Amino acid sequence: MLERRNPIKIGEAVRKVMEYRQEGKSEYVSILESGGRYLSEDLRATSDVPHFDRAPYDGYAIRSQDTSAASQSTPVEFEVVDHIGAGMLSDKTLGPFQAVRIMTGAQMPKGADSVVMLELAGAQEQGSKKTMTVKKVHKKGENVSYKGEDAKEGQVLVRKGTLINPGVQAMLATFGYAEVPVARKPVVGLYATGTELLDVGEPLQPGKIRNSNSYMISAQIQRAGAEVRYFGQLQDDFDTCFEAVREAVKDVDLFITTGGVSVGDFDYLPQIYEKLGAEVLFNKVAMRPGSVTTVAQLDGKLMFGLSGNPSACYVGFELFARPVIRTMLFSERPHLRKEQARLDADFPKANPFTRFVRSSLSAEAGRLVVVPSGLDKSNIIMSLAGANSLMVLPGGSRGFERGMEVDVLLLEDQEGSLWPW
Amino acid sequence: MLERRNPIKIGEAVRKVMEYRQEGKSEYVSILESGGRYLSEDLRATSDVPHFDRAPYDGYAIRSQDTSAASQSTPVEFEVVDHIGAGMLSDKTLGPFQAVRIMTGAQMPKGADSVVMLELAGAQEQGSKKTMTVKKVHKKGENVSYKGEDAKEGQVLVRKGTLINPGVQAMLATFGYAEVPVARKPVVGLYATGTELLDVGEPLQPGKIRNSNSYMISAQIQRAGAEVRYFGQLQDDFDTCFEAVREAVKDVDLFITTGGVSVGDFDYLPQIYEKLGAEVLFNKVAMRPGSVTTVAQLDGKLMFGLSGNPSACYVGFELFARPVIRTMLFSERPHLRKEQARLDADFPKANPFTRFVRSSLSAEAGRLVVVPSGLDKSNIIMSLAGANSLMVLPGGSRGFERGMEVDVLLLEDQEGSLWPW
Repeated sequence: MLERRNPIKIGEAVRKVMEYRQEGKSEYVSILESGGRYLSEDLRATSDVPHFDRAPYDGYAIRSQDTSAASQSTPVEFEVVDHIGAGMLSDKTLGPFQAVRIMTGAQMPKGADSVVMLELAGAQEQGSKKTMTVKKVHKKGENVSYKGEDAKEGQVLVRKGTLINPGVQAMLATFGYAEVPVARKPVVGLYATGTELLDVGEPLQPGKIRNSNSYMISAQIQRAGAEVRYFGQLQDDFDTCFEAVREAVKDVDLFITTGGVSVGDFDYLPQIYEKLGAEVLFNKVAMRPGSVTTVAQLDGKLMFGLSGNPSACYVGFELFARPVIRTMLFSERPHLRKEQARLDADFPKANPFTRFVRSSLSAEAGRLVVVPSGLDKSNIIMSLAGANSLMVLPGGSRGFERGMEVDVLLLEDQEGSLWPW
Repeated sequence: MLERRNPIKIGEAVRKVMEYRQEGKSEYVSILESGGRYLSEDLRATSDVPHFDRAPYDGYAIRSQDTSAASQSTPVEFEVVDHIGAGMLSDKTLGPFQAVRIMTGAQMPKGADSVVMLELAGAQEQGSKKTMTVKKVHKKGENVSYKGEDAKEGQVLVRKGTLINPGVQAMLATFGYAEVPVARKPVVGLYATGTELLDVGEPLQPGKIRNSNSYMISAQIQRAGAEVRYFGQLQDDFDTCFEAVREAVKDVDLFITTGGVSVGDFDYLPQIYEKLGAEVLFNKVAMRPGSVTTVAQLDGKLMFGLSGNPSACYVGFELFARPVIRTMLFSERPHLRKEQARLDADFPKANPFTRFVRSSLSAEAGRLVVVPSGLDKSNIIMSLAGANSLMVLPGGSRGFERGMEVDVLLLEDQEGSLWPW
């Protein structure tokens, strides 16, 4: 007797999964290990930047009022009374017609309110006496970077959930975050199921294929920002699978299996969910590939039953598991980023289900263009390598042709989207 | 006496650096550690995919010729003689009007040349005798995935220099690459110079700032795909700096310093290069920020003297050091990827030098749009965190205004460009 399943819409399926999303947890890591992690708190300025008035150029710090009579024909002479580089302090307080030679980034000396740029100052030296001349009126504050000009103490500079990239690391260092609050990486348990699976190191055998899904999904889990706990491969045997899954699910934040979710005679995941007492949220989604993707929850913990088909497995992870992971990384935009692009291929055949086509998104003269990244048979893994996006072709009675605008979901992206469905 | 430097064009500067690029070296790592590394050899199919004829759906394997008389009104009955799942083999050879119940991915039994989809087959069971009926003519090869259909043994599937992403990992596993040939990570030595620099853990002091550049550049080095060897901070003292640089440069593939390259009185890098006997390729580039960026070579080893200004430092790394690193990672497109985008801000002031403005690139209805990611003062690190690109505003006598098309260099990208200048 063939089991009948009722397909639900993709947005409805994602909504059901997200009802069981969990909040992220925070931990501290050294700034040196913070790259690629996600901030678990807003990054605030711990001081003004700059935290003192400073020279933005090499030149001479002066009192601007002393230049009021300066012009090309009437240069004003200053006595150079000190000489400081960045990180040095002058102990002088400037009197009338006195100047301090100052380097970029150095703190303004007392009394000075303006900097004459090096290129515009005429310097003279006679014995131990150093002077310089100015031929232009300088205003108060001219060529001075003022305290707090770039950032004010307490200001929120970067929101929590942001990936720590090189620029964020610079800010963390500037504000003295030797230890950085980051999201603890969710731990994702993974089992591959299927009697047909050989390990990557094994020679091929008739009727069997090497297990590629667990390597692929592990890499996807890491790309999403989580940590993988890979438990191994399981044969299609109910008792073995049941015990293995029951144990494995205990110690992880999310649990993923690949294979065994279809209606085939050796697909045991549905029975395993039932015997565990897990609630199946859905077992059929109106999408291709991946229509048999099944998600269940056990005591609030999500169990993702992804298809054993590599393409379906890939798509199922990105649509359903990724937003849960990103939520635990404090993202407010946990779903794949959606953009519009011009389709540069024909898909004449209509399909009642929404198709997710592995695609290569690029730009031509400032316009986004999308093409399939390979033949789109669902059992072809070749197209996965070149895919940077998933083209969305809504289900319905019509095909799609070159030149149409279609939605595209970006795979290699940190921005995400609030809700793309 | 103010030193006069002759600015050269950015493309000319990059060309001079690339003359000293080095080839990459290869090493083997476990497939489990290959994620995020770069292939050092083309990835070839080590077998056909599939490597046997198989069923793409659950159903019944049959001899197509036996369906020649089948129709809605005249169903043809088959005897079901075996039952196999993926990874199992049938020892039967099909005779006339015999069928094997077969699951997705299983090898086709001998004699079979077509698969009846489960949904279209009428199954009956009477005692131990199982039969099924077909109401439609099936062609030879219908619903069969043939050996070699997806990939042929020996075929190049992914080019060397490609980042190993989840899709590539799936292919590596499929083809049995338990050990993967990847580019050895170039080792980049790094010293931060400047008396003004405090360590990230130190409290602020008058006139001093925390060292943010070495954290930022370390993250940029890692993002580019190389390994950092951070040697620490140096005070602005010639003898100390000279000895430190002379020792450090020996053990690394590339060497980077931040700070000390301007014409200020405490900028010692030019003298250090001279005393080392290094050839200075250039010490002034017609660009903002980063015009004082200096690159030298010593016995063919590149030494990058980046500005101490965070923005200039950031840009200098991406334009000059990144392509050298990417070349060592076997990339044929080692430079930042260039795209065109609509400018959504005004830059009314002309500048004789080409400006690189830290920017946020996004898409609106399929069109790329670029805005500055912060105030564009060159001493402001705030804008770095939100930057995913550098807007290129060519030097000249005119400003730029909203709506114009400008070139943009992408920072978070793996595709790269052959030559963007």
